[in-house]
Order: sequence, then structure tokens, then C-alpha cells
Amino acid sequence: MIRLDGRKTNEKREVKITRNYTMYAEGCVLIEIGNTKVICTATVVEKVPPFLKNQGKGWITAEYSMLPRATGERNQREAAKGKLGGRTMEIQRLIGRALRACIDLEKLGERTITIDCDVIQADGGTRTTSITGGFIALEMAMRRLIEKGLLTENPIIANIAAISVGTVKGTPILDLMYTEDSEAEVDMNVIMNDKGEFVEIQGTGEEATFSRKELNELLDLAEKGIYELIDIQRKEIEEEFSK
Amino acid sequence: MIRLDGRKTNEKREVKITRNYTMYAEGCVLIEIGNTKVICTATVVEKVPPFLKNQGKGWITAEYSMLPRATGERNQREAAKGKLGGRTMEIQRLIGRALRACIDLEKLGERTITIDCDVIQADGGTRTTSITGGFIALEMAMRRLIEKGLLTENPIIANIAAISVGTVKGTPILDLMYTEDSEAEVDMNVIMNDKGEFVEIQGTGEEATFSRKELNELLDLAEKGIYELIDIQRKEIEEEFSK
Amino acid sequence: MIRLDGRKTNEKREVKITRNYTMYAEGCVLIEIGNTKVICTATVVEKVPPFLKNQGKGWITAEYSMLPRATGERNQREAAKGKLGGRTMEIQRLIGRALRACIDLEKLGERTITIDCDVIQADGGTRTTSITGGFIALEMAMRRLIEKGLLTENPIIANIAAISVGTVKGTPILDLMYTEDSEAEVDMNVIMNDKGEFVEIQGTGEEATFSRKELNELLDLAEKGIYELIDIQRKEIEEEFSK
Amino acid sequence: MIRLDGRKTNEKREVKITRNYTMYAEGCVLIEIGNTKVICTATVVEKVPPFLKNQGKGWITAEYSMLPRATGERNQREAAKGKLGGRTMEIQRLIGRALRACIDLEKLGERTITIDCDVIQADGGTRTTSITGGFIALEMAMRRLIEKGLLTENPIIANIAAISVGTVKGTPILDLMYTEDSEAEVDMNVIMNDKGEFVEIQGTGEEATFSRKELNELLDLAEKGIYELIDIQRKEIEEEFSK
Amino acid sequence: MIRLDGRKTNEKREVKITRNYTMYAEGCVLIEIGNTKVICTATVVEKVPPFLKNQGKGWITAEYSMLPRATGERNQREAAKGKLGGRTMEIQRLIGRALRACIDLEKLGERTITIDCDVIQADGGTRTTSITGGFIALEMAMRRLIEKGLLTENPIIANIAAISVGTVKGTPILDLMYTEDSEAEVDMNVIMNDKGEFVEIQGTGEEATFSRKELNELLDLAEKGIYELIDIQRKEIEEEFSK
Amino acid sequence: MIRLDGRKTNEKREVKITRNYTMYAEGCVLIEIGNTKVICTATVVEKVPPFLKNQGKGWITAEYSMLPRATGERNQREAAKGKLGGRTMEIQRLIGRALRACIDLEKLGERTITIDCDVIQADGGTRTTSITGGFIALEMAMRRLIEKGLLTENPIIANIAAISVGTVKGTPILDLMYTEDSEAEVDMNVIMNDKGEFVEIQGTGEEATFSRKELNELLDLAEKGIYELIDIQRKEIEEEFSK
Repeated sequence: MIRLDGRKTNEKREVKITRNYTMYAEGCVLIEIGNTKVICTATVVEKVPPFLKNQGKGWITAEYSMLPRATGERNQREAAKGKLGGRTMEIQRLIGRALRACIDLEKLGERTITIDCDVIQADGGTRTTSITGGFIALEMAMRRLIEKGLLTENPIIANIAAISVGTVKGTPILDLMYTEDSEAEVDMNVIMNDKGEFVEIQGTGEEATFSRKELNELLDLAEKGIYELIDIQRKEIEEEFSK
Repeated sequence: MIRLDGRKTNEKREVKITRNYTMYAEGCVLIEIGNTKVICTATVVEKVPPFLKNQGKGWITAEYSMLPRATGERNQREAAKGKLGGRTMEIQRLIGRALRACIDLEKLGERTITIDCDVIQADGGTRTTSITGGFIALEMAMRRLIEKGLLTENPIIANIAAISVGTVKGTPILDLMYTEDSEAEVDMNVIMNDKGEFVEIQGTGEEATFSRKELNELLDLAEKGIYELIDIQRKEIEEEFSK
Repeated sequence: MIRLDGRKTNEKREVKITRNYTMYAEGCVLIEIGNTKVICTATVVEKVPPFLKNQGKGWITAEYSMLPRATGERNQREAAKGKLGGRTMEIQRLIGRALRACIDLEKLGERTITIDCDVIQADGGTRTTSITGGFIALEMAMRRLIEKGLLTENPIIANIAAISVGTVKGTPILDLMYTEDSEAEVDMNVIMNDKGEFVEIQGTGEEATFSRKELNELLDLAEKGIYELIDIQRKEIEEEFSK
Repeated sequence: MIRLDGRKTNEKREVKITRNYTMYAEGCVLIEIGNTKVICTATVVEKVPPFLKNQGKGWITAEYSMLPRATGERNQREAAKGKLGGRTMEIQRLIGRALRACIDLEKLGERTITIDCDVIQADGGTRTTSITGGFIALEMAMRRLIEKGLLTENPIIANIAAISVGTVKGTPILDLMYTEDSEAEVDMNVIMNDKGEFVEIQGTGEEATFSRKELNELLDLAEKGIYELIDIQRKEIEEEFSK
Repeated sequence: MIRLDGRKTNEKREVKITRNYTMYAEGCVLIEIGNTKVICTATVVEKVPPFLKNQGKGWITAEYSMLPRATGERNQREAAKGKLGGRTMEIQRLIGRALRACIDLEKLGERTITIDCDVIQADGGTRTTSITGGFIALEMAMRRLIEKGLLTENPIIANIAAISVGTVKGTPILDLMYTEDSEAEVDMNVIMNDKGEFVEIQGTGEEATFSRKELNELLDLAEKGIYELIDIQRKEIEEEFSK
Repeated sequence: MIRLDGRKTNEKREVKITRNYTMYAEGCVLIEIGNTKVICTATVVEKVPPFLKNQGKGWITAEYSMLPRATGERNQREAAKGKLGGRTMEIQRLIGRALRACIDLEKLGERTITIDCDVIQADGGTRTTSITGGFIALEMAMRRLIEKGLLTENPIIANIAAISVGTVKGTPILDLMYTEDSEAEVDMNVIMNDKGEFVEIQGTGEEATFSRKELNELLDLAEKGIYELIDIQRKEIEEEFSK
């Protein structure tokens, strides 16, 4: 199968990371995966939500939003509608859950990290891009807490990254862009750590179903892509903190 | 491992279906899986949402809610809070997506089926129970449209059911009740059809990660449970319509 | 006048009470009056609303809701609309006010009882059925507080029950079902205690007016019905607690 | 019993009507009953709500609000809270229902009359004052539709007015002001037409109950007060339209 | 240019102040400027918003609303819509900001004054009328705090008033009524103190632009009008407190 | 006076424009003025709001938002709060009004242009930067409508730009950054066209007042800054469309 942008079936799009894209946040990157662009910031606050008070543990939460014209047609702002849509809630719950799986909340101490993922331009894979970029912002924030003496040990226990895989016209492919995503028979988001263990799998075939064999092929593709993303994440962190 | 209620690791809870539990809906069951009780109703309306107008296709959508005291502690009503929570939205999107995968929307014609899943009592697995019960309500509504001459052919293309699986203290188990769910390292919901094909998989390890091997063991358990549920669904439908 | 279901004008519908219909609440009944079915639960919380803090008094409040397909046509959920309608607010204020009238709030102590009335199926009289069932749930919760040693004396000062009466085609009748209610010239809800004293009367003639004579006939009917309901309530409580 | 303001038990407060208090509405009065002041306006719109389309009938609806400092302590605006409270909804539903009972909606034709009742100052009885004043605004609007040739016949079929009665320290009294209302054992609002027929009765004894005998005494008081109010309404209408 | 109501271009409308129009507020006036009528009340509360806690300073805030039929066509209530519109928010922020500019918040001490401006009838200039009337209500409340011994010194540091100016068919005019406002090329609101200093200027030419020369002519007109309004304010305060 | 960043009192910050920053919108720039960064996009839709239907005229509207971490401390999202704040509403009304003043809505035809201004990073002057950048996005969209043959004539009638001026420690300065803005005695936003005519002036002295002389000095500064911004806007448009 020849993909529209000439990629091989097991080839992810080009990744570009701009560290410190904005100046106030404790951690910030602009992550571009193909034409998908997301600003991920990590904000550290020295308190925890009520349900965690006085337990010596921290919390990670995430919020996700798209600019109205991040897409081909303009979407109404959720602030104007007066409520968050189901898709937004589902995505930000996923991002938060994934990032909590890579951190030791007790080592974090009584502080909350909010990861804001704002999609500037969308071309498929915005939720997985948010997790991959959000991890870098989180790691940057952790390193800065150590630099400031607020933490003695990095609470991150594993690198994580995420990627989408799917089946288009019967062929399993890696890292779907929007036109591929909209015609996929199976659509799967995989979040994995650097040891090849799953953090979360979400696979759906809205108009179709998929077999155990297909599932395995898709998971193989995802694993390859995630290892590549984790290499990029590590190089960025290293460059930032070897300065 | 001995489970609290004496079940084997690959044993699901007892299932009880009360058909026509309420009298107005086109399809209705009270489904009880262990102590989890959900009223599932199917409502047929002869029109479609705006985005489907004049395309000759139908639509399936789902809504999910819990009575405030369905759980050990009372939860505030979402109607009183003035908005649906993220968990509710995620679940009702999942139910709708799953049920759309088992129906030929073109054969359904320009009508909308709303599946309401109201949890009367919750003891784990409310979303999978809603899908399993929701399918029966949907099938009942389809059969009645045929009986009334509004449909000539049943638009349902496959039976589907759903079940939860998870890993508790390292052991993979089938159909988790609440106390098991709250201490599970891995929590997975599997939706499958009667040919053993996946409709959707959602697996997460909030405090932990899981390997490919564990994934496969959990999927084996789920498959067994789903085949048993589909047998029950079929028997109920047969009894109802052989009258 | 012959009523649709063969009842006499002064005859109420059959009443069926299922105690402990759900398992978590401090008090719970499923009450069925004809085809009207309501789950009433009482939840006890050991604190009071801000306006009652440190006054040594308790509080009773009520919430009312209908499942979307409790009626012939499906109603949109209030949680989905994002607000409670006027009818819901009016009814839940009425239920709370009525139940507060039968209890000594000082004897209750600094705790709040929330009575949730969820209508599973509606065929007229849902608000009066909620009060009659809600009273049983409340009484059950009080008895259990005594059994647990949290109360030494039952704070309930009188049994209360409620019923609807109305005038259809000029004839006063007791306990209207939906088809009667929708064509009634006068519609009245009466809440009374076991001494024949009124707790609340609400009578309206939206398309008509009514005379003092008619009022008196309707109140006579209501009194008869309420005494019968109170007998049923007492028998249920006795059975539950003589175990 | 000597009342705080020197009135007899069966004596209502002084009533002052300022017709055409504002200049745009089709009907408008400022009604003052003692220290309670309400601006009632009637707005005529030449269309009906969706549920009445093409039935040749009109509609009457009402809205009720209090200025934040109409009372001793300032209340937060409902517009600022983002929703109408239960009390407001209950009152505006009552006003609308009462005024619909005094008009022939078919003679009104396909138009909607909105009665706005804005309480400028509150000293008890704001809902009954709104109905009494709202009736005058409605009658004024009807007369003007006739003057303009938009109606040939007045659709009003009966004069209505409303008043509160209650029991304070065991004594039944007419037209309670705020200090009386807040210590009343029984609180009742009565809406009646000029033939002495009831439009609506709402009687409650939140901390107490009341007997049939008390009910009758209160209804006698109300009837006297309502006849006096109807006389005042008629005189105002006459003065306005004999000009 | 001859104005519709016969005024000269530099002539403001007749002003009428009714002090103590309602009885509960710490300060209250009904201000009528031509046909524009606004009830302005000042409410004093002995606490401050969270952001000012324990700073020894007070706060002034304002709220603005129009009765639905204050205008030629009825407007839907913002409480019914469930949110404040942009115009309302803009106006109440302006009123609050203006009134904070005329008071020494430290001398006020830890208390909050809320100025409610409720437009009973609108004929142009409702925001400037609210500021002019709101100032009197505020001054009245301050004097009463002094009378009660709660303040030793008046925290008001300058009289302020506000007026609209604008250009209609090329001619600058003072104090626009609604018909003038709706055809104005330039519309400007000016808030000034008794020393001729500006508190705020807002000038806009939605369909047109304006030159520096025009700006200066409009400011000259505004200054004249504001001095006249301040004279009226002073006289009212004097009359009220020389009693 | 020496400014923190070394600028002269009449010197604006460096301006950087990135055209076509995102790829879907009909017009798009990233505008950076000092550390303030705003993405401005223009979206063209071939219909108008209801109040303009069938009048042959178009409409321009604007929306404004800040990313949560655009500022030193994270702000809660308005979508999460469920409503737009007063500041946001005031700003987006201002941007829309300003841009409507530079276009002939009849020449635009029955289409709506929405200008979205999303603040990525805030360091003072976000509303004026939004107007200056929004104008370029609007002009780009107009040129593209001409290129596509959808318009024959450019409906823009004048270039507009906006800048802030203010008085800090008694000295009037141009283009305030955040630290200056927060200590300014007078804060003024000026919107002007290329002929030196005002589109809108908003000047306020929250803790102080200002004289006519100060007003004139501030307007002189603003005029200088705006002419410089308009030169930059023109150069960008020229470069884009001479390609």
C-alpha cells in the first residue's frame, strides 16, 4: 500500500520538538508530528485536590483543548457552548491516567502537576501526540523541581509515549493522519513505556470488527513507533539539561 | 486464588434477565449480573439527528446514568450539578459506539434508537452490563419493528456482549465485582461479537503496566465469558418472540 | 361513573411494596401503585447543611427524578439539559416539606436524611406515591439508626401518606391514573397524617374552577384513601422490624 | 390578637395601584399591598409556543423575579447564579396557571401574553400580589387589543385575585406580612374568581398540621379579602378605560 | 439642529431623584433622566471578597440588569437564559470601576458595598444614569455608616457623575435618548469628577470614525453636563442629611 | 524615565509577524509584540447570523481566549468553568466592533468572518495586539476571496491598528508591557485608522483620574505607534500577495 504522503506502512511521521515554546510554564514544548501541532505545558502547584489532602502524595491531571480553527472547518469553542464535550473529557481523562502511570506520586510529594495540551493544528493523532509531548513537559518540570531543590529524586519511573495504529483497506499502518483515520476500519491508540509494557490500549472498529491476529499486528507496529518516539524524547531531555 | 464470593478465576457471576421490566419502551430488560442491576430500554423515534438527514440511514445512541444511591455512598445527581461528568460521557459514548457496530444502519432506515442504561445498583461492571443488556433491548425493539411491519429485515448483523477482565494480585480473573475492581492492577473491558471478533478493547493499568502475555491471558478469559453471555441473550430473545 | 380499570370512584389502585429493593441505602422500598413505580431510598449523612450548623437539629431533603422512558414518550434527561425543570423542583420541594412535617428535627440530631424518589414507570400520582413510599424509607432508616444505637428515640411524630383526588366529568374520584389525570377538571394532591390532619393541600383547576362543596367532597375521598395507605405503611414497617 | 401594624385579623393591608407605571408594555401596573411592591407588565406577542402552533389558541405565561435588595438581606441574582431557583420556578408556574384559568385561550387567538412580575420590595405575599396585579395588567392588555381592533371580544371569562391567609399563634389571619408569615403555623395561598369559586388552593403547615375546621376558617377569611381585591381591580380598569 | 424633544444640542434631559425609594437598602434612589428610570441601591456587607482578605481594605462592586419590558420589545431574562450577556458584564464592570475611583478603599475598611442598578425603563443612557444614581446611593450608605458610628471619616474622595455624548448627523449633542443613540455616528460615555478630571472615557464610532477635533467638542459637552449632574447630586445629599 | 526593557517612552516593542502560521484558516498570522504572542485566524462562512438574514450584508465577529498558562500563574479554562468571564466578553466585543468599523459590510455580501484571537503568551496589550493581528488575518481572507472570484472588490475601507498607552509614575508611555500595565495610573487603548481617525478610545484611571492635558499627550503617543504598526501590516500584506 502506498500512503498519501509516501510513507511506508510502518513509518511514523516526522517529529519536531520546540522546547520552552512559551516562557512561564515549569515545562513546555511545542510538539509537531507531521501537521499535528500541540503546545504541552506543565504547571506545578504546591497543593493537592481535596481527596488527597494530608496523604503525602501528589497528583497529575491533564486538560485538552483545540483552537477553533485547528481543523478544516471551524469548531465552536467549548467555553462559548458552556460545557466540555464528551470527546474532550474522554481525551483529557486518558492523558491524565497515562501520565499518572509513569510517576511515583508519593515521591512527587503534596503537589499537583497540570498538563495542558492545546492543539494548534490537527491532522490526526492529537491525543497520542499530547501524551508524547506531555511526558516531555512533565519530565522538564520534574528536573526543574530538582534543580530548585524542591525534590531530591526524580519521581518519574518510566518513559512513556503513545501512538495510533489502524487498519486501512485491510492493511495495518502506523501513525494515521486525518485522511487515513477517517477511513480506517480499526483505530487503536497504544500507550507504552520504555520496557515495552502497556500503559493503556484502546482499540475500536466502529464500522467493523477485528480479529486477534489483526490486534497482534497492530500492537507490533505500535511498539516499533513508540520506541522511536521514546528515543526522541530522551534526546530532547538530554539536550535541555546538559546545558 | 479464592475469590470473595467463591467463584473460580474464569467464572462469571450469575445473570438474571427480566424482560419487559417497564411497559412503555419498545424494548426493555432489567439485567442483573451479580449485584449489579441495570434497566436498559430502547426507544424508537422516526427521525434522525441533523447530521444524518436525508441519507437513508438510521442512528443508535446511548445514555447512561446511576441512581444516586446505586453505590455505597450517595453520589450527587448530575442533573443537580448541571452537567454530565467525564466518566458518564465516556461510558455512554462507548455503549453507543459498541451497539452501532452490530447493526446495519442503512437497513434500519431513517430512525433513531436511544438505549437508556440506568444503573439501579452498582457492584462493578456497570458499563459492560449496560452493553450486554442494551443489546437485548435493541434486538427486542428491532423484532417489534418487524412485527409492526415497519421493517422487513432485521438490521442486526451480529450479537454482541461485553465483560470486564482484570488482574488482581497477579492473577487474571473474569467479571470483576466492585471490591475486586478497586484493587485490580489491570482493568480491561472487552466487547466482542458471536464470531469471536473484537468490537472494542479498553485496557488500562493505572498504577501498573502489563505485558503482551498478560494481555493475551485476559483476552482468553473475556472470550469465554462473552460466549456464555451471548448464549443467555439468545435464549431470552427466543423465549420472548416464540410466544 | 365506570372507571377505565373498573375501579369505583372511591377506590384506590392496588399497592405493592418491595422492601430493601436495593442493598446499600439505609432505607429503601420499591413502591408500586397501579402502574406507577417509584424507588424511594433514604440516605443518612452525619452532617447538616450550612444554615443549620451547630443548632443541634437535623434536616430532611428530597430529590425526585423520572427515568427518560418512564412515560409513553421519552423525555430528555435533566442532566443532559443541564438543569432541573420547574416541575421537578416543585415536586422535590413538596416531598421534602411534607416529610419534614412528620419528624422532630431536634430529636433527629445533626444529621441529614436525603429521600431519593426515582420514578421507574409513571401512570399518574408520581408525587403522592413518592411521599407515601418516601415515608416508609424514612421510617426504616430511623429504626436502623435506633438499632445501631445512634438514636435512642424515634424522631417520627406522625405517619403521613399522600394521594391524589380530582374531578373527571363532574365526578369526584380517588387516586387518578394518567388518563384520568389528563382529562380532570380539578386536580388535587392531599398529604395527611394518621390523625386526619392536613400536612399540605394543593388543588388546582387549570381549565376550570371549583366550589367549596366540591372541595369538601374531594377532601373526604382523600381522607379515606390516606387512611388505607397508612394501614399498608404500618404493616410493612411491622413486618420488617419484627424479623 | 393585636397585629403588629394594628390591623384586625380579617383586615387586609392598604392597596395602591399605579397604572401605566412604565411606558412600553401593553399593560402595566405598580401594585403596592402594604410594603410589598410589584411591577406587573403584560407583553403581547403575535405568536405561540411550538406546542400550540396552528391550533387557533393563545397562551398566557408568567415570569417572577425579585430585585436583589427587595428584602432585608441582599439575595444573589439568579442571572448571576446561572439558574432559576426552585422557589422562583414554583411561583411563576403558579402565576401562569392561575391567569390561564381566567381567560378563554381560543378567543385570545394565536398570541402569547407574558406577565412579568418584578418584586421591587417584599414584605410577604409577593406571589398573591403578583397574581392580583398581573390580572389587571392582563385585562389592560386585552382592552387595548380590542381598542386596536385586534380582538373583537374580551377573552377574559372571570376576574381573579389572590391573597394569603394563615394561622399565627392559633389565630387565623388575613394577608400576612413578612414577620407574620415567618412565624405562621399554617400558610395558605388562595386564588379565587368573582363568583367565589376556587382557581387554586395551596395550604401548608411546615412545622405543624391543620384540621378541616381551621381550613374552613382560613377559606372564609380568604374569600372576604379576595372580594375586596376584585372591587379594587374593577375600579382601576373602569377608570383607565372610561377616559 | 432641532432635537426630537425640543432640547438644545448642549441640553441634558430633566433629572428627577426619589431618595429612599425602597426601604431596606443602606442607600437607595430612583433616578429618572428623561424617560430612563433606574433603581440604584447600595448594600453594605461586613466582609470582603477572598482576594482582599486581611488587607484592611474594602471593595465596591456593581450589578446591572434591565427588567424584561424596560424596552420597546421584551428581552428574555438573563436568569432564564442561564447566563449574563456580554453587554451586561461590560456595563457592570464599568460601573464598579468608576465607583471604586471615587473612594478611598482603605478608609472604607473591610467591608463590601454592592451597587445594584436595575433599569425599570430604558430610553438611552442607562449605564451613565446608573453611575450617576449609584454614586448618590453610595454616598448615602457612607453617611449612614458614619451616623451609626461604623466609620469615623467619609471615604469618598470625589463626587463623580457620568453622561453620554455623541454625534448625530454631524452635530455633537449631549445626553442622547434612545432614538438619537440608535442613529449616532459617534457614541461616547464620559465619567468625570467634580474637579473636571476624567475617571473613564469610552468613545466608539461603530459605523464611522471620528477626528481629534470632534473628540474635543464632545468632551466639552460632557463636562458641562457632568457639572450640572454633580450639582443635583450634592443638593440631594444635602437635603437627605440636613434632616 | 528609563523603562525596564530599555525602551524610550515613545517606543513600541519589536513586532514579529508569521503569516500562515496554521494551515486551514482563510487568513492566519502569529503576531508577537515583545513577549505577547497571539494567533489570529479569519474563518469565512457563507452565511450570516439570523438578525442579518436576507439583507445582502455580511458580518464580522471575534472571539478571544488565553491558553491557561499564557500568564505567570495558570488560569482556569473558561470551558471548564462553563462560562465566559466578563473580561473575555468585553475584549471580544471590542475586537469585533473595531474590525467592523474598517469594512463595508454590504460589499462583503452575505457571509460571516470570525476572527479568533488566541493568546499563546501574554505580556500586556493582548487586546490591542489581537486587533492589529486580526486586521491582517481579515485582509488576507478578503484578498483570498477576491483570488477565488468570490468577491470582485475588497470590502476593506481603511487599515486599522491598535495600541495601548498609559501613565506610569506620571510619565506617559507607549505600548505597556505587563509590569508597566500593572502599575499604571492611567491605562488607555486606542484604535485608529490610517488617516489618523479614531475607531475607539477606552481610557480609565482605576485608582486615579486624568486631565484633558494628559489625555492629549497619550493620544499623541498612540497616534505615533499606530502609524508604525500600520506600516508593518501593509508590508506583510504586500509580501504575501506579491508572491
